[in-house]
Amino acid sequence: MDNRPIGVFDSGVGGLTAVRRLHEILPHEDIIYFGDTGRVPYGTRSAETILKYTRQDVRFLRKFDIKAIVVACNTVSATALDIVANETDVPMIGVVWPACAAARAATKTGRIGVIGTPATVRSGVYDRMLKAADPNLAVFMQPCPLLVPLVENGRVHCGDIVAETVVREYLAPIKAQNVDTLILACTHYPLLSEVVAAEMGENVTLIDSGAAAAESVRGMLVPAEERQGKTRYFVSDDPQGFNQLAPGFLNGSLDFPAEQVDIDAY
Amino acid sequence: MDNRPIGVFDSGVGGLTAVRRLHEILPHEDIIYFGDTGRVPYGTRSAETILKYTRQDVRFLRKFDIKAIVVACNTVSATALDIVANETDVPMIGVVWPACAAARAATKTGRIGVIGTPATVRSGVYDRMLKAADPNLAVFMQPCPLLVPLVENGRVHCGDIVAETVVREYLAPIKAQNVDTLILACTHYPLLSEVVAAEMGENVTLIDSGAAAAESVRGMLVPAEERQGKTRYFVSDDPQGFNQLAPGFLNGSLDFPAEQVDIDAY
Repeated sequence: MDNRPIGVFDSGVGGLTAVRRLHEILPHEDIIYFGDTGRVPYGTRSAETILKYTRQDVRFLRKFDIKAIVVACNTVSATALDIVANETDVPMIGVVWPACAAARAATKTGRIGVIGTPATVRSGVYDRMLKAADPNLAVFMQPCPLLVPLVENGRVHCGDIVAETVVREYLAPIKAQNVDTLILACTHYPLLSEVVAAEMGENVTLIDSGAAAAESVRGMLVPAEERQGKTRYFVSDDPQGFNQLAPGFLNGSLDFPAEQVDIDAY
Repeated sequence: MDNRPIGVFDSGVGGLTAVRRLHEILPHEDIIYFGDTGRVPYGTRSAETILKYTRQDVRFLRKFDIKAIVVACNTVSATALDIVANETDVPMIGVVWPACAAARAATKTGRIGVIGTPATVRSGVYDRMLKAADPNLAVFMQPCPLLVPLVENGRVHCGDIVAETVVREYLAPIKAQNVDTLILACTHYPLLSEVVAAEMGENVTLIDSGAAAAESVRGMLVPAEERQGKTRYFVSDDPQGFNQLAPGFLNGSLDFPAEQVDIDAY
């Protein structure tokens, strides 16, 4: 038994889609969540800046005696994880390879679409990892810089012409490739599933990268003893906005309200 | 004569709309510009975080022997300027009161609209300052959280259904009040003038807050001697994106490419 908490971080609230799945499948685990709400978004910034922010996020989580870190952010997983994992002596689990594994399990035609932030797409990591596993896969990537602002402003439902138009434009080149599987390579995007699914049609499987990462954690940890796990939340901006948004992402209320962290100090 | 440079800062590239006007009306002045591209946007963050970032921005500019600071950011001008100006021994010129003065000069009906970031609108400063100057003015404010992401993604032209829909939604309550003057209370918004003007109609005067601030600087400084002023640009993220975007905001090329600053160190 290992009762130490699991650390989870993201640029903002998106990583809560991974926490939600962790709560479902690992209810005995304690979790420490950090959302860098004072510096979100990461996905439109340079690789160098993302690396700097990631190092600070990891140093903050290491303040706690954690047993693993879930990098619930595709941008970090795609651009900084290898470097930081190499500097860190607890296991770090990103969202990229669990999402790739889930997509490979789901696809029948071998044609896979990937939507993500500009930084994630620019990194090319999804294309490389999918083709390294199976060179016969055809992978189509599309950067979607406006989707995080849309999610953060609650524009996530069918019938919203702005959400529908932006999603339709971004998905058009992917849809034209007749993919049967679409990786939502940003932990904010599951909130837009309704609009994305309506656009792609019922024959396309959507892969939730945060949920896939949560599933992959299960086999990699010494579990906690049977008890009710607790989750603490930390953010770098005023917690008020986070406390309002989080229940929607978690589909449930917070164990404790979020606390504020001066992330520059790490 | 005072040949020391003028410092100008903004959360990102928006403040370049003020630099553009400074170049037109004060061509002899040297300028040091800082854009906090590693932490943009400010307008959706808490007042406390905006204050912290502002103090760092000012400390960086004070490294140079500047004669004044133009706060080319409505969010900072609305929420942190009074506090930081009080801590600083060079004059700091914000965008709020120049924009208010320009709006008062323009209005005939006394009905003024204000569009800005959530932080600027939440501060209530435009309403307070306009009514303090003239209690008969009627002021209508509207937060527009998606406009900065739209500008940053180049969605600024008529015919773009996303830009048009978002602008129409935000402006509807202002338009219903029959304003004759609209303050663009964010230095990003002048890039959307085409869409905003088409929606408001030709009888509404748009006030460019960055340009108004630049005009107000002219009367407040000991000028530089007659020469060709130079502008240096600094940003907190990789300068590449800034160097690409900036000529569009400035309507001209950069004297020098932007340099990167570690703003956390200030």
